[in-house]
Amino acid sequence: MLKEIEKQSDAAGKDELKTEIKELRAELTAMQERIKESKLPIIVLVEGWAAAGKGSLINELISEIDPRFYKVVSSVFTPQAESRYPFLYPYAGMIPENGKILFMDGGWMEDAVRKYIHREITEAQYKDRIREINEFERQLRDAGYLVLKIFLHISKKEQTRRLANLLDRSETDWRVSQDDLWQHREYEVFFDTYDKFMGHTNDAVKWHILDGEQRRLAVRDAMRLLKNKVQRALEKGRYVGKPFEEDFPLLKMPKLADVDLSPNIPEADYKKELKKLQKRLNQLHNVVYRKKIPVVLCFEGWDASGKGGNIRRLTYPLDPRGFDVIPIASPLPHELARQYLWRFWTKVPRSGHFAIFDRTWYGRVMVERLEGFCAEQDWKRAYNEINEFERCLTDWGAVVLKFWIHIDQETQLERFNARQNTPEKQWKITEEDWRNREKWPLYEQAVDEMLAKTSTENAPWHIIESNDKKYARLKVLRIVIEAIEDAIDSQIKRDLK
Amino acid sequence: MLKEIEKQSDAAGKDELKTEIKELRAELTAMQERIKESKLPIIVLVEGWAAAGKGSLINELISEIDPRFYKVVSSVFTPQAESRYPFLYPYAGMIPENGKILFMDGGWMEDAVRKYIHREITEAQYKDRIREINEFERQLRDAGYLVLKIFLHISKKEQTRRLANLLDRSETDWRVSQDDLWQHREYEVFFDTYDKFMGHTNDAVKWHILDGEQRRLAVRDAMRLLKNKVQRALEKGRYVGKPFEEDFPLLKMPKLADVDLSPNIPEADYKKELKKLQKRLNQLHNVVYRKKIPVVLCFEGWDASGKGGNIRRLTYPLDPRGFDVIPIASPLPHELARQYLWRFWTKVPRSGHFAIFDRTWYGRVMVERLEGFCAEQDWKRAYNEINEFERCLTDWGAVVLKFWIHIDQETQLERFNARQNTPEKQWKITEEDWRNREKWPLYEQAVDEMLAKTSTENAPWHIIESNDKKYARLKVLRIVIEAIEDAIDSQIKRDLK
Repeated sequence: MLKEIEKQSDAAGKDELKTEIKELRAELTAMQERIKESKLPIIVLVEGWAAAGKGSLINELISEIDPRFYKVVSSVFTPQAESRYPFLYPYAGMIPENGKILFMDGGWMEDAVRKYIHREITEAQYKDRIREINEFERQLRDAGYLVLKIFLHISKKEQTRRLANLLDRSETDWRVSQDDLWQHREYEVFFDTYDKFMGHTNDAVKWHILDGEQRRLAVRDAMRLLKNKVQRALEKGRYVGKPFEEDFPLLKMPKLADVDLSPNIPEADYKKELKKLQKRLNQLHNVVYRKKIPVVLCFEGWDASGKGGNIRRLTYPLDPRGFDVIPIASPLPHELARQYLWRFWTKVPRSGHFAIFDRTWYGRVMVERLEGFCAEQDWKRAYNEINEFERCLTDWGAVVLKFWIHIDQETQLERFNARQNTPEKQWKITEEDWRNREKWPLYEQAVDEMLAKTSTENAPWHIIESNDKKYARLKVLRIVIEAIEDAIDSQIKRDLK
Repeated sequence: MLKEIEKQSDAAGKDELKTEIKELRAELTAMQERIKESKLPIIVLVEGWAAAGKGSLINELISEIDPRFYKVVSSVFTPQAESRYPFLYPYAGMIPENGKILFMDGGWMEDAVRKYIHREITEAQYKDRIREINEFERQLRDAGYLVLKIFLHISKKEQTRRLANLLDRSETDWRVSQDDLWQHREYEVFFDTYDKFMGHTNDAVKWHILDGEQRRLAVRDAMRLLKNKVQRALEKGRYVGKPFEEDFPLLKMPKLADVDLSPNIPEADYKKELKKLQKRLNQLHNVVYRKKIPVVLCFEGWDASGKGGNIRRLTYPLDPRGFDVIPIASPLPHELARQYLWRFWTKVPRSGHFAIFDRTWYGRVMVERLEGFCAEQDWKRAYNEINEFERCLTDWGAVVLKFWIHIDQETQLERFNARQNTPEKQWKITEEDWRNREKWPLYEQAVDEMLAKTSTENAPWHIIESNDKKYARLKVLRIVIEAIEDAIDSQIKRDLK
């Protein structure tokens, strides 16, 4: 793409350009209130060469915007060796809320490219990242985000001149980093890599290459782009993406109605086995910690199916400094104001730690779907978005396991009644539980669809027969232990290669 | 205090101890629901020697607690050189919300002591930290937090034995850090420092020293302490601290009614001067960034007084990567569920950055006071709590400036009417603005009291005459520039010492 860049030739006179920029600025300023009112979230990503003028361009764009409505962040890259989070983690965590603008001076492109050229990541990992970036941008677009991607281009000759100028004066020499000099030496390698990267990420959100050697023209063009895109977004109303189904390798799941719920275990065997499994999990936690394997465990299931009890048996043998249990309730206002996965991205564990979710992002395709808390397109799109999110986690090396804690309607009724009749347990049962119970068939249908569409090889669902709670607890423990052992084995194999 | 520790001598038989621990555990488990219902937030800080068994003690305490209700964090110390935030920042940011429990395996005590002994901080800075810790603990107590502080003590001989044991086996040797070995070599220095530290921080929240050499007894005692404290807290209902007034060096402020609002400036002079001041601020931002000076600017003032316009003139010359404008609205549910300064602590800027608050923590003593959003004791206590919070920032080296943007009632009426009559500006005026206007005398009284009680030498208030907006903008810029120049000068002087 870089090779095709055409010099902007419509360069009018200097004064005309000045007038046009002034007008564009006034138009953008006038749009602010409508951006806020129509709750349009905007991300402006400015990538480009060192010394291409990314910072100055952003300065021009924001100069009349009310500073309460935007935020500027500059490159937040962490060396691979130091990062304990997935690649997209910092970016997914900084997306703006509705009606606000995020300007990024260098972002996921520079991050991926630099690590690739530095050989901090392999060819295969680089490809994963490109795929993750495409998915991330599409998910943002589908959630109604306006994303504008600009690449500021300068020639090697111009970069030489600018870096030399900066290095020449003590007030500016500190602005030139070792990384910048290294990029300059390797200009041709970067050129080729940037070029290909943009070719590979020109999908849901297109790139706009601007000529950084003509500063005023670049400013004019960036403003025009922003104005036109905002105008279109405001006119068309919030974009809602269509469901999109990628071919994830899916595991065949049984229908809930076909699950045999009779398995059980005698009390004596249970106690012995529980002790043994917990001891093993305790040993494994040490290894997980030292090998920095992230573990994400997801619990969903019927009310009163025993999620809490399962989680307790699981955390008992774990070092409490190494796990978090994250209960998921209805989203708060500041969470609703962002793409719905935001509140889960921000809860991803550090590598070497466990995150145990008591209810999860699957709320989207269950309660939010059935109660009408989101549009039909939103939950239909979510199956694929969730599969992509979970693949980001497993790409990063995480063990991701999902448990559907399953009971039948009679067992639920017994447990509800038992709760109602035991004073210490009454708090556990609410009106809402009874209301949800009436919707059992609808939920069952939604759960069947969810299991069918999201049980991927990398992040499988496990249906846990829980009419006998003891049986359920042992089964969960066994699955977790086995998956962690496998992950340790494959890490060892990778390390030996 | 360490010297006075008495061996727990009521050691009953082993079996009796086991039974007692079992009973205590059952009692604590039974209390969970009441902790949640009564919204009691709890912090259990476990400090002590390396290898004293802090982690195991916490494990015992949590073993039957529902993992959704607690969180365990282990020492989060950052070397002084790497930290870009004030000392208390990580701790103030991790306080639990109502009804939840935070267990800390090492916290602010170890952090302060270690940096002191390592000579990462001076004697004077160490004293500041002890004062800040006392204030922090008092503020938590006054906001209804139950804070339990435990120190686990072992002798040097016992530490030798335990460290040797750990180092002896490859499964455990990685648990012994260089810091632990260093503490062991300097046992006597640590003994003395721990001892004095506890003597100096035994104020609002008392220390409990437990004998780490008798593990079961320590567990029993920790459980007893927690149970008794929770019981007392649940019985007495939420603690609300009394107002407390420390002698902060206060600047004498005029009453708002006595402020002459006539100052103004001709348009031509304004433009020239604005340009000059903005140029100067732009230069200073570079220095601020390189010298890592944090700048916190607070804007309060009447509706339509021109806060937004002031902020825009200020941010225009700043590098957008180096500042954040933070609009403060009503607190969200998860913010209301914590001590009220939490949402401001978490917005403290990195060193070298500007944080510009559009409305601030002073909402507590204005709108929250007048609209009854908090108890009388709460806002009366807030003057002192705010002064302490701001001193934490200036201790850290921040420039903290507070502006009251002032107009008279007639000017406000003119501006309200102008907004009402200009279609593009109508969004700026709401019913609430008119209602607030009716309460002008009440607000004026509250503001006068606020200015009188919180204009400290380290974080002064400036009343900005804003009937002429242009005059106001220049005055704010001048004050900011002067304060930053002073801060740079004193940093240079400090560096030269």
